Amino acid sequence: MDTRSSPITLRIERVRDALRASGTHAALVPSADPHLSEYLPERWQGRQWLSGFSGSMGTLVVTLERAAVFADSRYWSQAERELAGTGVDLVKIPTGAATHYIEWIAEQLQPGQALAVDGQVLGLALAQQLRAAMLRAGIKLRTDVDVVESAWEGRAGLPAAAIYEHLPPHAAVSRADKLAQVRAGMAAKGASHHFISTVDDVAWLLNLRGADVDYNPVFLAHLLLDAHSATLFVGAGKLPAELQARLAADGVGLADYAQAPQALAALPAEAVLLLDPKRVTLGLREAAPDQVRVVESINPSTLAKSRKTAAEAGFVREAMAQDGAAMCEFYAWFEAAQARGERITEITIDEKLTAERVKRPGFVGLSFPTIAGFNSNGAMPHYRATPESHAEIRGDGLLLIDSGAQYLGGTTDITRVWPIGQVNAAQKRDYTLVLKGMINLSRAVFPRGTLSPMLDALARVPMWEHGLDFGHGTGHGVGYFMNVHEGPQSISKAVPDANMAMEPGMITSNEPGVYRPGQWGVRIENLILNVPHDTPEQGQFGEMLRFETLTLCPIDTRCIDLSLMRSDEIAWLNDYHADVRQRLSPLLAGDALAWLQLRTQAI
Amino acid sequence: MDTRSSPITLRIERVRDALRASGTHAALVPSADPHLSEYLPERWQGRQWLSGFSGSMGTLVVTLERAAVFADSRYWSQAERELAGTGVDLVKIPTGAATHYIEWIAEQLQPGQALAVDGQVLGLALAQQLRAAMLRAGIKLRTDVDVVESAWEGRAGLPAAAIYEHLPPHAAVSRADKLAQVRAGMAAKGASHHFISTVDDVAWLLNLRGADVDYNPVFLAHLLLDAHSATLFVGAGKLPAELQARLAADGVGLADYAQAPQALAALPAEAVLLLDPKRVTLGLREAAPDQVRVVESINPSTLAKSRKTAAEAGFVREAMAQDGAAMCEFYAWFEAAQARGERITEITIDEKLTAERVKRPGFVGLSFPTIAGFNSNGAMPHYRATPESHAEIRGDGLLLIDSGAQYLGGTTDITRVWPIGQVNAAQKRDYTLVLKGMINLSRAVFPRGTLSPMLDALARVPMWEHGLDFGHGTGHGVGYFMNVHEGPQSISKAVPDANMAMEPGMITSNEPGVYRPGQWGVRIENLILNVPHDTPEQGQFGEMLRFETLTLCPIDTRCIDLSLMRSDEIAWLNDYHADVRQRLSPLLAGDALAWLQLRTQAI
Repeated sequence: MDTRSSPITLRIERVRDALRASGTHAALVPSADPHLSEYLPERWQGRQWLSGFSGSMGTLVVTLERAAVFADSRYWSQAERELAGTGVDLVKIPTGAATHYIEWIAEQLQPGQALAVDGQVLGLALAQQLRAAMLRAGIKLRTDVDVVESAWEGRAGLPAAAIYEHLPPHAAVSRADKLAQVRAGMAAKGASHHFISTVDDVAWLLNLRGADVDYNPVFLAHLLLDAHSATLFVGAGKLPAELQARLAADGVGLADYAQAPQALAALPAEAVLLLDPKRVTLGLREAAPDQVRVVESINPSTLAKSRKTAAEAGFVREAMAQDGAAMCEFYAWFEAAQARGERITEITIDEKLTAERVKRPGFVGLSFPTIAGFNSNGAMPHYRATPESHAEIRGDGLLLIDSGAQYLGGTTDITRVWPIGQVNAAQKRDYTLVLKGMINLSRAVFPRGTLSPMLDALARVPMWEHGLDFGHGTGHGVGYFMNVHEGPQSISKAVPDANMAMEPGMITSNEPGVYRPGQWGVRIENLILNVPHDTPEQGQFGEMLRFETLTLCPIDTRCIDLSLMRSDEIAWLNDYHADVRQRLSPLLAGDALAWLQLRTQAI
Repeated sequence: MDTRSSPITLRIERVRDALRASGTHAALVPSADPHLSEYLPERWQGRQWLSGFSGSMGTLVVTLERAAVFADSRYWSQAERELAGTGVDLVKIPTGAATHYIEWIAEQLQPGQALAVDGQVLGLALAQQLRAAMLRAGIKLRTDVDVVESAWEGRAGLPAAAIYEHLPPHAAVSRADKLAQVRAGMAAKGASHHFISTVDDVAWLLNLRGADVDYNPVFLAHLLLDAHSATLFVGAGKLPAELQARLAADGVGLADYAQAPQALAALPAEAVLLLDPKRVTLGLREAAPDQVRVVESINPSTLAKSRKTAAEAGFVREAMAQDGAAMCEFYAWFEAAQARGERITEITIDEKLTAERVKRPGFVGLSFPTIAGFNSNGAMPHYRATPESHAEIRGDGLLLIDSGAQYLGGTTDITRVWPIGQVNAAQKRDYTLVLKGMINLSRAVFPRGTLSPMLDALARVPMWEHGLDFGHGTGHGVGYFMNVHEGPQSISKAVPDANMAMEPGMITSNEPGVYRPGQWGVRIENLILNVPHDTPEQGQFGEMLRFETLTLCPIDTRCIDLSLMRSDEIAWLNDYHADVRQRLSPLLAGDALAWLQLRTQAI
């Protein structure tokens, strides 16, 4: 195929112009912004704009001869489709080799050549790794070149959505208390100052929310703290005057978003600055004077917000009940409409389900784009139906719906698989083995300090036994009316911090799956809250923990192959359904209540 | 207590004299030798000699004011006892913080002061970590000071045991083939030279064995390889002339043990030297000229020898049958002698069991000192009965025996717990939960690439559920007529290499336990071989692996609380016992055969 006329080819050529102009030989364009967010405002979607690959994770490298997108297995089919004919290669990242592109760059360039990467969006920890690797390969690292800015005409500006306050009772800990908690963390590290770039940390700490990033109620800002005062670096006009006054009362002043580097540069020489190398960019780190001593450690707010308080957990349970009720209303309509022979597509499902959630008290918005995938579409973990390309729900098979919402009192994320027409034995087997994995983790008891990969294994064991596995982690951390993907907690083999262990109050998803490309996909997902577990051993062998299942919604029982279920697993499912029925019944009436009663019957 | 007159106090004072003489302020004495072995020849037991702490792992730090031994939880009670009254403190290493002493040193010393450590026994990887930490703390690192040599009058010399050849058929791969395999690994890394210090790697690669270290059939030597020749640096007179000639025929020449640094120093400037930073010392690394490029990677031999060939696995199965037969002879005698009312102690057990092993074909020696611990002695994972202090086996309780041997065709390691008199309900519960953990791992199926901590969890899950856990790893790697602890494979939360995964051919132990200090201990241990697992999914979800249980010996069924066992677990045990009966019967007769039949009855 002739790729010369593709718009992507032209964009890549503009990157090469920028390389030549700056005397560099390759550009690294990570999926990153100055806050190192997982979800990026349009302005920082340069990798997508330049390459055409629209997956949420991926890295672009452009040399004078080649261009390549690095993506993990979740994105391979999408990337192959989107990159076809652009001249941009897909490099498949091997499992567990997230920074595979570093070796690739070292191979592509000659010693003495230079790599350009924008230091304003380069995480400090990654910068250290990159610098060491380039040093070994004899390649110069230039962090003062932004090829995206040079190549992208009409690049979007800063988002300007208004900021509002997360109020009590849902904001269950006051701003003053949170600031005191973080300052205690600073003192424990001997730090006089602390700079926070991560938008969820800033929003949590100040009990503020925004709308700068789709689905995540956050806003772009940095925060500089000392022992008594704080400065919020934020776009002009985003905070109403009244809210500014309330922040001032808690010792938080405002400065323009762009002033953060200058404020760091003005730190006194005797300052001790606490920075999280995974959560602050090289550009901001380098803004601080050389004399300032930097203490590298995880943001105290990142750990604090991951452990939900008892009051927060109480509101999350209420949000889960509302969300579960919306799910029941939806499924009651869906099954009736199917029975009436109405035409339903993956798009209709998104619309109807969202409409049910909108009616619920405390609803703010969706927490991510609804994934409704019928049969082969369900086999793509990141599928999204579009008006141009989507399936109608008819015939036989499995319908996977992964959806969630933001409520003032919590963030939800739930996946269910529903039978359409006849479900065959192979589908039932997959469904049952995934369910067994989900149950196995739900019921787990383990000592405090158990590593994330050890928990991940528990969801896989019943699947492994039958030769099945899945390519994503079992669980991601979830925020409190905040990001639906929010660490540091996770349940996964691939953890950024190998020593991170589950702590009481942490919320994660529990979502094993199985994907048969071109056929069907199964994923069953509940959110789970880590809680202490009383044991007859009284902690003689360490403090024990377990999970409380938060998500409340029937799990289809018609897809289960009972011959594969043990009696203790069946008992778990029946107990869960009894709980769902008891807690959702007060929120439902009529058809939806009847549907709830039908679909929570014991098996 | 007045500690001034203790011999340990005097030794520590001699270390301080050496510190003052060299202008340093603290000495780090690791448990290490120039080969970074786990088990040390007497000459390098300086930490033990200086501190009096005789545990197999531990680190001594001596400053001008303080002296401290760092030990993990397995050794705390032993260290407290042995260090009492010496003036040497015990610092308890927190879980997962093996190099805790580095932070401690950084706290004890002032910036500008100097730490002394003998570079000849300091691993390269540890040296890099230590150097970075000392740099951060402003402390000088001196690796040219050996305080042990200065303080230890009458220090032992080099061991001088003879070296012999491991012959076919048990040496199932020829020396020439192994050398070719390692040279292929060198070529893959672009290396012209490769230096090997680890004694198990040298012995494996050259099909040689020795007796320089108790229980491990290894000898002290280094090996320098290039693409065509090899030089073995070994003590004069350890190899008979005929064996020297046989080595020469395979291109392996000899040089004196002390000549290794000079040979490294004489490498040509264009050499590319492959070194394993975890398996070579700083002193030897620094012997190579600065111009030589060093490629750091795991020794190819370390990976190669961890994956036993089909022929080796066959000999291991034979050795396991012989070892199991010895166990049956022993237990048949033990139960009969108990019934006759003979006086039996933990020492008698060691003697009788060893005598039974000695009779078996292929027996070379024990693979570690037998642990026979009755009741509270069994609660100490590293207990060893001594003529001065040991228990008689009488009354009620649990007898734990952990023992093993070296055979020409493999290395064994087995733990069983036997009931003595009446066993109470709490003991049965512990025993049963440990057994369930052992069975759960034995039956596991998992994809290639599954990380070690994920497998470790499988043995713990049935115990966690009831609030139990244990403080050691579930499994250590095992050599082939070599070290009974031999990596890189392990089944543990604390793995030196977080990405190390189980590969077909690897042998590990499977030994969950529960320890109730002052009461009793339970540990049940089999060795397991990793093998491919055929699945109906034909590898669609990755290549699947499972374990074959190698150890053949009855597991006591009278200690089982059947109410805690699932039917699939009982089926596993009955199948195992049927296999044991079938494979050991041909090797037994009379009372031992009758005993085997009795103790392998299905439950």
